[in-house]
Amino acid sequence: MSETPRLLRALAGETLDRPPIWFMRQAGRSLPEYRAIRARVPDFLSLCFNPELAAEVTLQPMRRFAMDGAIVFADILLIPQALGQEVWFEAGEGPRLGELPSIEAMRDAVEGSTAKLASIGETLTRVRAELEPDRTLIGFAGAPWTVATYMLEGRGSQREAARAYAYDHPDELDALLDVLVDSTARYLVMQAKSGAQVLKLFESWAESLAEDVFERIVIGPHTRIVEQVRAAGIDVPFIGFPRGCGALVEPYAAKVPVQAVALDTQATAAVGKRIQAGGKAIQGALDNLLLRAGGPALDARVEALLEQWSGGPYIFNLGHGVLPDTPVEHIARVVERVTGKPAKALAAE
Amino acid sequence: MSETPRLLRALAGETLDRPPIWFMRQAGRSLPEYRAIRARVPDFLSLCFNPELAAEVTLQPMRRFAMDGAIVFADILLIPQALGQEVWFEAGEGPRLGELPSIEAMRDAVEGSTAKLASIGETLTRVRAELEPDRTLIGFAGAPWTVATYMLEGRGSQREAARAYAYDHPDELDALLDVLVDSTARYLVMQAKSGAQVLKLFESWAESLAEDVFERIVIGPHTRIVEQVRAAGIDVPFIGFPRGCGALVEPYAAKVPVQAVALDTQATAAVGKRIQAGGKAIQGALDNLLLRAGGPALDARVEALLEQWSGGPYIFNLGHGVLPDTPVEHIARVVERVTGKPAKALAAE
Repeated sequence: MSETPRLLRALAGETLDRPPIWFMRQAGRSLPEYRAIRARVPDFLSLCFNPELAAEVTLQPMRRFAMDGAIVFADILLIPQALGQEVWFEAGEGPRLGELPSIEAMRDAVEGSTAKLASIGETLTRVRAELEPDRTLIGFAGAPWTVATYMLEGRGSQREAARAYAYDHPDELDALLDVLVDSTARYLVMQAKSGAQVLKLFESWAESLAEDVFERIVIGPHTRIVEQVRAAGIDVPFIGFPRGCGALVEPYAAKVPVQAVALDTQATAAVGKRIQAGGKAIQGALDNLLLRAGGPALDARVEALLEQWSGGPYIFNLGHGVLPDTPVEHIARVVERVTGKPAKALAAE
Repeated sequence: MSETPRLLRALAGETLDRPPIWFMRQAGRSLPEYRAIRARVPDFLSLCFNPELAAEVTLQPMRRFAMDGAIVFADILLIPQALGQEVWFEAGEGPRLGELPSIEAMRDAVEGSTAKLASIGETLTRVRAELEPDRTLIGFAGAPWTVATYMLEGRGSQREAARAYAYDHPDELDALLDVLVDSTARYLVMQAKSGAQVLKLFESWAESLAEDVFERIVIGPHTRIVEQVRAAGIDVPFIGFPRGCGALVEPYAAKVPVQAVALDTQATAAVGKRIQAGGKAIQGALDNLLLRAGGPALDARVEALLEQWSGGPYIFNLGHGVLPDTPVEHIARVVERVTGKPAKALAAE
């Protein structure tokens, strides 16, 4: 009964008989029971800040599928809000952010920011209390550069202005990243203290960065966050996800003190094996478009991923989040193939 | 006088005392003399199809800067038009394409497609006649997958539907790529016969493709194009540019029979060196946002690129095209640093 859960064993560097599995955005619009809960709240952020409902949607995929990990239902833009920048969601258009506060105002807001996110801790505590002991609870935060792109652009669909800002205003960007490092580290410490057994950093927009810039605005801040969390006495494993960074994932894996590197859809078999050989676990990298498409091509790709990466510490996952229109049966099929455990039909089905 | 031009020496695998240089989109909106020509034609495609004016804009950056290569002024969407799909440009919004013709209609159009692009050959012949012998003329085409994304989506800004099509309709996509391979190979043979001394394949949207899909829709079609051009007796060197493909650039370099691989902004120093060690030239990868920003950071990055890659065959270039609002002085400064030759002020300046 005291056996270490499979996901934590992979994160400790163990090569297992079969990889643990979970999917990014496994809690979300692909599930009808999620859509039913979502309809009961006025907007997306209300759901994030409601511990009872957020715990419920976090647990929904765990009831259906034999996932080894549950990821807390929250959003990467809760930090800017806690630092004083207004955040709201336009239906069908994604996030919008108000005017960027001054760096001084945000610096002053860091100390109080975690208290504003206390309900996320309550969600984690509720989920951990209900989750079986062999299943692992994952907390997360957006990584500083990605969060900064939203804060600078005021929305999610454009990044070129933020990338230009890295060259045109390097000192201002570094100051903003520092504030985000400090607030994110505090937030993750609170998550670990509330029940998170793994912490994941989502660098969703690591695309098109030159190697020197990537060192400065991705590798540096990720490293400082892990160091600050460790300095607070928290030793839970970290997963780093520098999505879209291409071959830069290898220097990332070599330099950032995370226990696992999440690989995106375009990751090569060879790169994953080299990261494993370097002593880290890898996670990924099934194409979410293929999960949605299903059929023999999906089955074949799942076999190929298991074949290429099961010789080292490996966590089966997607390269990006589950798409809203993904058939539930496709998720069930992949999870059953990896775990040997069939999905459960819900009472209403 | 019969010495091989510097750009061709690098493409033959030679390590030179200083790399040749040219910039993607060096002919274009960053130059006031280009904007003056552009104002004389009703739309962008009219400029592409006017050999006198297209030759003039191709030569404009060669008069200002000591570029080693001139790239013919044309567009990657000329092939769909030659295959019967309507193409037009909305001011400020980029390309729009009409309904996709049937695969049978496009297959029937392949043989006649090159004749519809004869004016591009005339542009090449005009440029080659005016260009100094130590400067090299580059022809190009869009690579099949990238061109297919535009043909399938009807525009340039979205690619997810095209990526989904690769899973949902694999046979239809393969048939479309085959038509594009055949028409593109013919088009490039014509360009070489008209004066192009180098041929470049622009795979502008190689992002987010899984390794097996990349093999099928990028590596395969690129390989077949080079083979078809060789089978037609053309032995000019090829540059392949699989932009955004991340670590997949290494299998690309190992498998596609191009002489050089163009690297994008996020390419690592290590990957470039490994491709050089594998016997191919590399090209790239200065960030176009940094070229626009200028200043000491630009100077430092130019030195770093020269330092990291000058030990093997290397062509200095950007990782993407020159941005329209790039100051001419920034281009002049980089070209002078690499070549030792200052820019020339134009008569009007």
